[in-house]
Amino acid sequence: MASEFKYRRRVQFAETDLAGIVHFSAMFRYLEEAEHAMWRAAGLTIAERNSDIGWPRLGAALEFRNPLRFEEEFEVWVRIAALKTRTLEYEFTIVRGPTVIAVGTMTSVCVRKQPNGTMRAAEIPAEISERLQAVAQAS
Amino acid sequence: MASEFKYRRRVQFAETDLAGIVHFSAMFRYLEEAEHAMWRAAGLTIAERNSDIGWPRLGAALEFRNPLRFEEEFEVWVRIAALKTRTLEYEFTIVRGPTVIAVGTMTSVCVRKQPNGTMRAAEIPAEISERLQAVAQAS
Amino acid sequence: MASEFKYRRRVQFAETDLAGIVHFSAMFRYLEEAEHAMWRAAGLTIAERNSDIGWPRLGAALEFRNPLRFEEEFEVWVRIAALKTRTLEYEFTIVRGPTVIAVGTMTSVCVRKQPNGTMRAAEIPAEISERLQAVAQAS
Amino acid sequence: MASEFKYRRRVQFAETDLAGIVHFSAMFRYLEEAEHAMWRAAGLTIAERNSDIGWPRLGAALEFRNPLRFEEEFEVWVRIAALKTRTLEYEFTIVRGPTVIAVGTMTSVCVRKQPNGTMRAAEIPAEISERLQAVAQAS
Repeated sequence: MASEFKYRRRVQFAETDLAGIVHFSAMFRYLEEAEHAMWRAAGLTIAERNSDIGWPRLGAALEFRNPLRFEEEFEVWVRIAALKTRTLEYEFTIVRGPTVIAVGTMTSVCVRKQPNGTMRAAEIPAEISERLQAVAQAS
Repeated sequence: MASEFKYRRRVQFAETDLAGIVHFSAMFRYLEEAEHAMWRAAGLTIAERNSDIGWPRLGAALEFRNPLRFEEEFEVWVRIAALKTRTLEYEFTIVRGPTVIAVGTMTSVCVRKQPNGTMRAAEIPAEISERLQAVAQAS
Repeated sequence: MASEFKYRRRVQFAETDLAGIVHFSAMFRYLEEAEHAMWRAAGLTIAERNSDIGWPRLGAALEFRNPLRFEEEFEVWVRIAALKTRTLEYEFTIVRGPTVIAVGTMTSVCVRKQPNGTMRAAEIPAEISERLQAVAQAS
Repeated sequence: MASEFKYRRRVQFAETDLAGIVHFSAMFRYLEEAEHAMWRAAGLTIAERNSDIGWPRLGAALEFRNPLRFEEEFEVWVRIAALKTRTLEYEFTIVRGPTVIAVGTMTSVCVRKQPNGTMRAAEIPAEISERLQAVAQAS
């Protein structure tokens, strides 16, 4: 799973702040957009309607290396760092051409709705694991 | 119902854009925050859990008179312009001290979930009408 | 200028709210994204660096017809409704396939920074008018 | 500097997503709101007009322990973990009553605009260090 999925995007005006650059919280949304694009490329969706499975985040972290500005085009590279029984760990690199903008990680846990309505950590369904591994290897 | 409910707030950094002022889409979120604060003051919530009632928006409009900047304090004045059988119309004024920042309107419709899962326009429950009228008159 | 510029986009997760649909404030950001894409198609940018020209909004309005949901693809159609000496009026339609999601308008004013630092309404530069008219007619 | 600054806030509707809980990117904005409130309590602002000093982020990280929901009230506790020559490290805890929602860190660097317009890491001004230490000890 060393290969990476790439998501391409342009900075929108509302994502900038008074310092003239992309607000750091928007960078975390870029990670999520790339994650969900990778799921779609795998024939999956993170939010299947009427499913009892969910994917809350356990953690998210970014180190910022260079600023991004309005209308610049950039890529988010996604790598599946670990696909465990119940958790999914991603590594991300945001680049603008040859310039690294940020590097980071996110971890999600698979949860399943219990009969009493609460969510509880659950095994990642085999079909999801297999499809994510396939797209990570193919891209 | 000529009186107004007032909601006080400070501009946050992420709400500004590269022009150095509050992004216009954030102003619409300010209207909604003020609306929901008025509902709370009336002993209500717009999003009651396990309720089959919802309040989708039919329209929203703002005219912008003056810019708002980072850390400035402002007020949103909410007035119920019309409380009809199925719809609720608000008028808003955003002010910073004596300066009018923006004026606008929003209209929502009461919908009720049908047995087949779809939403359909429905009469506003009497208790909600009465409570909203009471808070609008009292404030 | 009856023709329309079309901007294509997919709904992102962070744009939804607890009602399960796109939050109405995100729809206003969609309008702006389409506006800026049209400017780029005209060889222009709304935020030229080191320019003394700016484009604050005078007004924005949307009527909502149908909900948009996570991962749905939609188009924003932009039409220049009026290109006056100092102001620019747009009309927008957001569609998902044959379904109209929302219709709306936005008006911006051209301002120029004065020697004392304040902004003041100014004539829209001829080159900008011509390029916007050309892209509106060509698309 | 073991004491903590506390910032109180209520969850707004637009901060939730279709999973019915606060979107994780909004939690990062909560950290920043708390940081800026602490600066104000110290008699400072992170974005002084006409200043040649800036505070870009080097990193931000959160671990999520429990979900936050619409209209819930919560606190962000801010602690200055390290105040170095050029960098400022914060630790954060987001709590709702006795429940820990998230814990995290942010690091910013002080930069100063150079004569050629670029930004370069610079010593944190003594007055800022002293005021931040004073508010951290007092609260």
